[in-house]
Amino acid sequence: MATITDVARVAGVSKNTVSRYLNNRGYISEKTRANIQDAIDLLHYQPNQIARSLFTKRTNIIGLVIPDVVQPFFATMTSKIEDELDRHGYKMILCNTMHSSSKERKYLDMLTANKVDGIIIGSHSVDINYSDIRAPIVALDRALSDDIPIVSADHKTGGHIAAQAFIKQHCKKVEQFVGYSKVRTPSVLRHKVFAEEMRDHGIQSFTYELKLNEFEFSSYLQIADDFLQKNPDVDGIFASDLIALAMQKKALELGRKIPEELLLFGYDGSFVYQIAYPSMPTIIQPYRELAQTIVSVLLKRINGEPLESMSYILPVRSSEEE
Amino acid sequence: MATITDVARVAGVSKNTVSRYLNNRGYISEKTRANIQDAIDLLHYQPNQIARSLFTKRTNIIGLVIPDVVQPFFATMTSKIEDELDRHGYKMILCNTMHSSSKERKYLDMLTANKVDGIIIGSHSVDINYSDIRAPIVALDRALSDDIPIVSADHKTGGHIAAQAFIKQHCKKVEQFVGYSKVRTPSVLRHKVFAEEMRDHGIQSFTYELKLNEFEFSSYLQIADDFLQKNPDVDGIFASDLIALAMQKKALELGRKIPEELLLFGYDGSFVYQIAYPSMPTIIQPYRELAQTIVSVLLKRINGEPLESMSYILPVRSSEEE
Repeated sequence: MATITDVARVAGVSKNTVSRYLNNRGYISEKTRANIQDAIDLLHYQPNQIARSLFTKRTNIIGLVIPDVVQPFFATMTSKIEDELDRHGYKMILCNTMHSSSKERKYLDMLTANKVDGIIIGSHSVDINYSDIRAPIVALDRALSDDIPIVSADHKTGGHIAAQAFIKQHCKKVEQFVGYSKVRTPSVLRHKVFAEEMRDHGIQSFTYELKLNEFEFSSYLQIADDFLQKNPDVDGIFASDLIALAMQKKALELGRKIPEELLLFGYDGSFVYQIAYPSMPTIIQPYRELAQTIVSVLLKRINGEPLESMSYILPVRSSEEE
Repeated sequence: MATITDVARVAGVSKNTVSRYLNNRGYISEKTRANIQDAIDLLHYQPNQIARSLFTKRTNIIGLVIPDVVQPFFATMTSKIEDELDRHGYKMILCNTMHSSSKERKYLDMLTANKVDGIIIGSHSVDINYSDIRAPIVALDRALSDDIPIVSADHKTGGHIAAQAFIKQHCKKVEQFVGYSKVRTPSVLRHKVFAEEMRDHGIQSFTYELKLNEFEFSSYLQIADDFLQKNPDVDGIFASDLIALAMQKKALELGRKIPEELLLFGYDGSFVYQIAYPSMPTIIQPYRELAQTIVSVLLKRINGEPLESMSYILPVRSSEEE
């Protein structure tokens, strides 16, 4: 393993000059820079990033705090965010809170202790004061605090697009499945727009609130079975993809015709909705653009640059448009 | 933000004593230890982990290198591995190689430069010499090198269980879908056992090798459509869950009866197979146990403890057993 002394010897300069080159400090001629870089390449020298971090006060590490990477929405966001951070020279520590408030708090302490350069939060524990965290933060689809910028998809348009499908099909009684209401998220706007449009078109609409700990597909299947048996007159369901997929499977098992007798419309649009037969319409979130915006806003925060806004809303589209 | 000086003052000891306590160095009385910990708790003191890392030569960071966290097998493994690492006080940097050999190499360099304590590798680029990496490594379902321990599910039994289903259904012509053959993985054992049992029972069996860059669900749907149209006489398909799910959807679109006319059997058993209607049988990998074994083997490597074996094979089960 090559050391900084080896690099200095091969480049024909002092250790101090190599150190200044690595830390981008002080004047070094173009020729000397080239010599040092040639020596680094030749020797496959790897500067100790820990020692560098103490000097530069940067770790180039970002923490991503989400409920669980198994959920396709978070898996897709994690993949795109990791890719985007990598393009900007950042690494990502992944923290799955598993919807546990104590685990989330422990993770936030850990990320602070490790001096991460910034944190992206897609979870939300009701009893954490996010403004107390000293690292720059960006929220993914969560209203954490007035002083924390938020990036989300355009829930209002998502609710509107879905509503049109139920109106077109002349549904009479529609159920919306919504997340645990104490978690503050802009998805409430989607539900509100949807409910308003149902009301305006004389369609009965009801809301089913999921509990905080209901997030496994097997529990969605149970909820679906129970709901469909008790509500045979519901002819439309608007829910996030996994719940809509569980409803479709259970409805087919019960012999219901999809979509003639029961229209299912999803929300999220990661790859899983494509598994369904008959095809299930959904709202596709702009994963790549969400990741790009989150990383760009976070880097501005880290570098102390001003933000144009504290809220970034990105356009969604219907899977039917494809 | 509390400093080490604050902790020393509140605990009534010297800064040096607090530092010795934090680094678990030299004798400190039980009473003094308790006083220091009380002061740390009272002040919410966060030791700078970067400074500690330089002293302890430990970062408590593990790198996880996988092709893409969007794939349900890797999403589930990532979630379980992260949870297991967290239980042992380790953090995880997630690296998605997106099946790019240059990205994988860059990640391995980055993890080395950041002095991670160990690396878990679930990807496999054919032109990387993994033995050259100085950090302790454990391989997830990949044969990287003779000196790198490997943890995988029992592919042989998986192949055998699936084979029994095709025999029982009296299939005549069966197709296996296998990964890119240049990636060295114990899954070849599954395919071998399966093909042998087909032959022994007079069932024709063929193999379709996927390309390295074919890993998105939309490309699986295209492969399925193309394959089913060209091979109307194939009455059985054994493939990993996502491919089997794509086959099921396209077969249903083509009006084929599942499973009477076409038996589909999956492999992986993350939540996605449960989306299928009609239900799709699959082999369920032992995700939790795989994660526990990987982390336990890696920690032994990190601590310089001897391993009982270089290969750990964990039992699978059929989804039909449930």
